This record gives sequence, structure tokens and C-alpha cells, in this order.
Amino acid sequence: MADDAKSLFVLENDVFKVYLTYAVLVVFKMMFLSFYTATIRISSKLILQSFANKEDFGPGYPEDKAAEKIAKGNPKIDRIRRCHLNDLENIPAFLIVGLLYVAINPSLYTATMHYRIFAAARYFHCVAYLLPLPQPSRALAFGTGATVTISMGVQILRAAAQF
Amino acid sequence: MADDAKSLFVLENDVFKVYLTYAVLVVFKMMFLSFYTATIRISSKLILQSFANKEDFGPGYPEDKAAEKIAKGNPKIDRIRRCHLNDLENIPAFLIVGLLYVAINPSLYTATMHYRIFAAARYFHCVAYLLPLPQPSRALAFGTGATVTISMGVQILRAAAQF
Amino acid sequence: MADDAKSLFVLENDVFKVYLTYAVLVVFKMMFLSFYTATIRISSKLILQSFANKEDFGPGYPEDKAAEKIAKGNPKIDRIRRCHLNDLENIPAFLIVGLLYVAINPSLYTATMHYRIFAAARYFHCVAYLLPLPQPSRALAFGTGATVTISMGVQILRAAAQF
Repeated sequence: MADDAKSLFVLENDVFKVYLTYAVLVVFKMMFLSFYTATIRISSKLILQSFANKEDFGPGYPEDKAAEKIAKGNPKIDRIRRCHLNDLENIPAFLIVGLLYVAINPSLYTATMHYRIFAAARYFHCVAYLLPLPQPSRALAFGTGATVTISMGVQILRAAAQF
Repeated sequence: MADDAKSLFVLENDVFKVYLTYAVLVVFKMMFLSFYTATIRISSKLILQSFANKEDFGPGYPEDKAAEKIAKGNPKIDRIRRCHLNDLENIPAFLIVGLLYVAINPSLYTATMHYRIFAAARYFHCVAYLLPLPQPSRALAFGTGATVTISMGVQILRAAAQF
Repeated sequence: MADDAKSLFVLENDVFKVYLTYAVLVVFKMMFLSFYTATIRISSKLILQSFANKEDFGPGYPEDKAAEKIAKGNPKIDRIRRCHLNDLENIPAFLIVGLLYVAINPSLYTATMHYRIFAAARYFHCVAYLLPLPQPSRALAFGTGATVTISMGVQILRAAAQF
């Protein structure tokens, strides 16, 4: 290994700083859905009592009634959960591929556009899923995000593939 | 980029070593749930026969009986699965944000506390979910872990945000 | 921190290049399942109309008929989803642990074998799940992948554990 190999994973590298920024922003967006689910579950305590575990209904709550409510579910919460699951399918993949993308030293402009478009697509995906907006809003948002990840992945393979 | 930019992602950096340690420990915790699910499914073969796929019941098992058992599910396994899904929502986010946190060169003490509290919170979350402990044990464990990730995320944005 | 600490996360390090290659390949495999699910949902529009959200059925589709179809689900799509969920449980963990593994400077041969076996196991897991192949094909594929991640994790702890 050459002695003068320079790490690109340093704050002096602007591409890495832009990655750090958008990585944190999409993680925050993903975590927002955890809190949103919890808020909806708790705020609806007296009306919907929609939880996934019997202990969440509180002590003294009849077990059979809890089981019935768990089985029935709640369409609003199920929607948030599906949106969250879609995040889990897309965001960790982006976070890793986006980080590795820094290593092939892309131009600042190209890298920033990739990160920015991905983040915008996922924020829009979330809005489109939760309102919901009519299709194909959500499908386009998903497709745009996935395209960004694939584009970075292809560039990484072209620059560094070694099997 | 300055010529003397030093990578912090090296074993000579104690913060990185502490991160490596806790990252592996939380991954092992998360993987434990895969094995635990499989163990429960298999160990209950003769009693509960609780699988998610018809081929898992073994050759010669009547298809309609398998379909019925799949549809019914199993409360114990469903609980482990929900615990696992909560890990998937929280641990990959921590792993990435915790790694990026190394790049902003936090003090060893601050970083160690972040990693340690997150790991402890997630191990406790798992115990609280599986026993289960009465609420708000599990909610507090989840909240503590999320707070650590958010704290690191905010520090990263303050040190390195570039849009 | 020693002044001559060299980052291993550079393209001059062959282990890192091999990691980059297999990391992208397993991400692509995981993303394939998103597209596959979408393709099956759309291609079956006229026959199965199997979606998870009422807006996906298109404008003018009767709400009660949509709700009924959502509730019923579809065994083929459910199978793809379970396969995808298994990826989410295993691939992000591998991506992180595999990346951190680079930091402990394993031999090129050892590292390549780890990455290669994991990728092969997960591609095979996907085939075994979707066809499906009789058990224990899928269980072995899952176990092989998990063993690779654990092996790297143990080596990381042995080389760098600091609590």
C-alpha cells in the first residue's frame, strides 16, 4: 500500500462533510417515524387504544379485550409502519453506499446532487405516504431514491471492483 | 484538502476502538434475536409447529394444516419479531451515526458514554420486551437509545453541516 | 495518537476494494427485492390487485373492495416480503461489521473469503426462499451468512476491544 495514501474520510474533505450532513438528516427523518408511531399510539389511548403488546394497555386492562384490539390493528398506525418499513429497506442501504461513495473521490457537485436528491426524495416519500398523495407520487419518490443509491453503487463498482 | 489531514478511523484512535467494541456488541445482540426466533420455532416443532413458510413444516406435512398454522401465528414468536423489528429501526441508525461521530473527534469520555449508554439501553430494551417488564420500562429503553443517536447526530451537524 | 497512523479505508488497500465490491453487490441484491415486490404487485393488477394501500388501487376503485383485498394479502408477495425482511436483519449488520473489519487489517485472502462467502450465501438464500427450495437450504444459507458476520465481529473484538 502506497505510503502517501490519503484518507478521504476527514472533515477537510467537503464531500465527506456533505455526506455527514445528509446522512444525519435522513436518519432523523427515519427516527421521526418511530416517535410518530408512539405518539399516535399514546394520544389515542382513550379512543383507539391501539398497541401491539398487552402490557402497553396498562395494568388492570382486561387481557381478552387487549388481545382483540391487538388483532384488529389500526389503519393509521399500519400506514406509518409500512412507511417506516420502506425507510428500513432504503435508508441503511443509502447510508452505507453513500459513505463508500466518498472513497472513490467524486466531484463535490456530483456527490452533493446525489445526497441532496436522495434526501429530498425520501422526505417527499414520507409526506406522500402519510397524507397520502395519489399515486404515482410515492412510487416516483421511492424510484428516485433507489436510482440515486444504484447510481452511486455502479460508480463504486466501476472505480474499485475487485472480486 | 490539507495534506496533513489525519484519518480518525484508525486503531490508534481510542474513540474508534471503543466504537468498534460497542458496534459489534449491539450487532451481536440484534443477531441473537434471529437465532432466538429460529430456536423457538424449531424447539416447538412437535407442540406448536409455528413457522412462516409451508416448506418449513417438512415434507409430507398437509398443506392446508400448514396454511392454517401460518395464518394463526404464535404470540411468543410475534413478540420476538416485534422486538427484532424495533432493533432494525434503531441499531443500523446508531451504527452509522456512531461511526460518523468518530469523524468529529469527540473526547474519549463523551464518546464512550454515548456508545455505552446506547448499548446498555438496547440490551435492556430486549430484556424488557421479551420478559416482558411492565411499561414504561421498554419505552424508556427505546427513548434512551434514540436520545443517544440524536445527540450524536446533532453534534455532527454542528461540527460539519455543509448543505 | 501516533502521527504515522495510516488509514486503511483508501482505494490503495485491496481489502477495502474487495469490501466495496461485495458491499455494493449485496445492497443491489437487497434492492432487487423492492423492485421485485413492486413488479409483482403491478403486473398482477388485473388479476390479483394485491396492494398494501388503498390509493395504490387507483382512483375510482371501490374502497370496501380495496380494504378486502388488502386484508386478504397475497401469498407470493408475503413470501418476497419475508425474504426481504430477512435481508434487513442480516445485510446492514454485515455491511457495518464488514466495513469495520477492514480497520483491523486482515489478510487479503481471509477478508476476501469472508466477503465472498457472505455474498454467495445471501444470493443463495434469496433463491432458496423465492423458489422455494426444500429446507434446510434456506436455513443453511442464513446460518452461513450469520457465521461470517459473527466471525468478523469476534476478530474485531479480539483486535480492538476497549470498553
